[in-house]
Amino acid sequence: MKIYRANILFTPTPDAFKILERGFVMVDSEGFVSGVFSELPQEYCSLPVDDFGDSLLIPAMNDLHVHAPQYRNQGMAMDLELLPWLKTYTFPEEAKYTDTGYAEMMYRCFVRDMVTHGTMRASVFATIHPEATKLLADIMNEVGMGGLIGLVGMDTDCPDNLRNSTSEAVDGTLCLLEHTKDMTLISSIVTPRFVPSCSVDMLTQLGRTALEYGLPVQSHLSENKGEIALVKRLFPDSSCYGAVYDRFGLFGQTPTLMAHCCYTDGKELQLMQKNNVFVVHCPTSNCNVGSGIAPIRKFLDAGLPVALGSDVAGGHHLSIFRVIQYAVQMSKLIYAQTDGRTPFLSLSEAFYLATKSGGSFFGKVGSFEPGYSFDALVIDDSYLSTLNSQLSPLVPELAEELTSPYTLQERLERYIYLGDDRQIVRRFCQGREVVL
Amino acid sequence: MKIYRANILFTPTPDAFKILERGFVMVDSEGFVSGVFSELPQEYCSLPVDDFGDSLLIPAMNDLHVHAPQYRNQGMAMDLELLPWLKTYTFPEEAKYTDTGYAEMMYRCFVRDMVTHGTMRASVFATIHPEATKLLADIMNEVGMGGLIGLVGMDTDCPDNLRNSTSEAVDGTLCLLEHTKDMTLISSIVTPRFVPSCSVDMLTQLGRTALEYGLPVQSHLSENKGEIALVKRLFPDSSCYGAVYDRFGLFGQTPTLMAHCCYTDGKELQLMQKNNVFVVHCPTSNCNVGSGIAPIRKFLDAGLPVALGSDVAGGHHLSIFRVIQYAVQMSKLIYAQTDGRTPFLSLSEAFYLATKSGGSFFGKVGSFEPGYSFDALVIDDSYLSTLNSQLSPLVPELAEELTSPYTLQERLERYIYLGDDRQIVRRFCQGREVVL
Repeated sequence: MKIYRANILFTPTPDAFKILERGFVMVDSEGFVSGVFSELPQEYCSLPVDDFGDSLLIPAMNDLHVHAPQYRNQGMAMDLELLPWLKTYTFPEEAKYTDTGYAEMMYRCFVRDMVTHGTMRASVFATIHPEATKLLADIMNEVGMGGLIGLVGMDTDCPDNLRNSTSEAVDGTLCLLEHTKDMTLISSIVTPRFVPSCSVDMLTQLGRTALEYGLPVQSHLSENKGEIALVKRLFPDSSCYGAVYDRFGLFGQTPTLMAHCCYTDGKELQLMQKNNVFVVHCPTSNCNVGSGIAPIRKFLDAGLPVALGSDVAGGHHLSIFRVIQYAVQMSKLIYAQTDGRTPFLSLSEAFYLATKSGGSFFGKVGSFEPGYSFDALVIDDSYLSTLNSQLSPLVPELAEELTSPYTLQERLERYIYLGDDRQIVRRFCQGREVVL
Repeated sequence: MKIYRANILFTPTPDAFKILERGFVMVDSEGFVSGVFSELPQEYCSLPVDDFGDSLLIPAMNDLHVHAPQYRNQGMAMDLELLPWLKTYTFPEEAKYTDTGYAEMMYRCFVRDMVTHGTMRASVFATIHPEATKLLADIMNEVGMGGLIGLVGMDTDCPDNLRNSTSEAVDGTLCLLEHTKDMTLISSIVTPRFVPSCSVDMLTQLGRTALEYGLPVQSHLSENKGEIALVKRLFPDSSCYGAVYDRFGLFGQTPTLMAHCCYTDGKELQLMQKNNVFVVHCPTSNCNVGSGIAPIRKFLDAGLPVALGSDVAGGHHLSIFRVIQYAVQMSKLIYAQTDGRTPFLSLSEAFYLATKSGGSFFGKVGSFEPGYSFDALVIDDSYLSTLNSQLSPLVPELAEELTSPYTLQERLERYIYLGDDRQIVRRFCQGREVVL
């Protein structure tokens, strides 16, 4: 049993933060929260407390869509169109992962950078290469973060050096499952790249594999109009893009993540509702790639589960805090473009997507309610919250006046909009400290 | 005469970066560039060279729209609507600047933070308070950055403690002009807050003052639809919002900055063209406040001068590098929403807006062509460019392979999308080093 003390903020529901000023959280020996208290109950008063002082203690971030082998391309060629960007940058980079030395080096950087920015769980696209993908699992496991890793299946309309056969994709996915079976927090996820890069045989076999082994599924859906038109040409009988995945058992038959959904509506939306398919909202990527703005309010109103994803390298940054910020901002643009008829996301709603909603894909993750995995970040925002460190050398006699002038929620918001990895001083995944 | 050596990147024109790998820039004793060279001419070879090694040397950032007294509110309540946000956060904060002690403390933080993030010139809204506004000028001058500072005029539909009379606004503007007359890089700018907060008398007298003293003008224009409708009700005879400023001599009769222009079109666009009025694009603010996306491509096609602004605290961050990023991103959303018919901004175009285009409001600023003020930043992006510092402890034998794998333009882009103040290691304004 461990007891931590700090300013605790989390979102049991999307509508508001639960805030405990200098509160306590108790974590059991398995790494799960056993209670959160404003005052420590009498029976625990003799136990040692790990006190984080005036820092903020919040659930860690969950990144539900990220391409590990695109790490090197972060923030690069963000002024190209999607297709030249894929052909010039993405595919040549992914092809390098046939070299396990290169893969190990880059995956170590990628994982360390994810953890640096506060992500403790991620659902990751790897490449078609089984050895490199196992290395990624090893590295994530070694660091102590949690995640689902997808060996990518792709056999259509792609470079020859990035093509695998159906059996290679299936075998690779199952090998990874076997490889990770003793890793507490890491497993394999079925990952067809997206409909246009998969043959019918690939989709069929991956769908069967998901069902047979009870594996989750991740892919891309309705990211841009050209892609949607292409899927319509490839599968003219399907009522919508999502229905293609559905036909192959890849759309909620097991827990399923669909990234983007910028243009999901009508039948596709109904099918996602019926099958409880997750929308993974990737607003930084949608801006960078020029896809459009996903109608998140509509999805929330429809009761769909929604998570956030960095989508590096379509997204330029691994920080899910930045993605929270863009999620609010994009919802404000929709608000403007619908003359105020579409309510924008509140901070607590966007935070909920990044924590409890996204975390639910991994089990009881993303909240500090009893029974939840203690995935947490300690944020020392003193630089941002008191201005003291800036002021003391300047106007010492006035600095005191401003000590902690912000509410705890304002401090968290300012951290999200103004802070960076410098302020994340401790990281926990399922109760265990993750050290850089 | 000083000679600096580094990897030099700047945009003499919007369409491409001029790049000199390990080039030289010569700066005269007045702080102006006298030449940029790939190889140092023979006659200078005996002079000492200040060598920045593998760092990037770029023009400094120019912030053409920022509210200094809203510094405390950065990144706060970004999920409120405009009016409650103004009433709950903005106005009460600005009212505090009647206290010169508070003003000095906050303005010192504000100026230091601007410089930290690489802004060497800014056009700033202060408040209605003459003493506090003079302090802001003193602090900017002391630090060594350049700028135009506006004592705000507002007498309509505003809180009593934020109302000045026409004569107070005019006198305050002229006092500031007098106060700054011996400051090389600081001056006064006529600053009606915006049409709805100014009486006809205020607009008339501020317009006359601008013309009589040849002072530049800054204000807000067509930021959101409600505001435009309000101006239409207040001035039903004016053909557009901009025509109201024009009628009072506040729209290009002297050099003029108009922030936002999210909905500028038709007659207003033509009037801006005719009068050569600057658009100040504030994309972070437009997202946060839910205003909409300004049609920058249309303005560029029309030949309007366009600059960038952080618009703190509507904008959440003082870094103009972030604003460059959002400018590209917002142009990509327009690209998506017009089905690819509106070309998005290239990185060089957005960088040009932040440097040479914005800088032109201050004279020959924002480029390294001969005759330009040496306003410059040295960016040590080794962490981002080589991955070495991350890799060496991890896979030393492979780290070498990746040394400088990025082109210089890719390195600059990655700095813009991934970097922060940590990588800005030297700052110059008109040849003089600005030290934090």
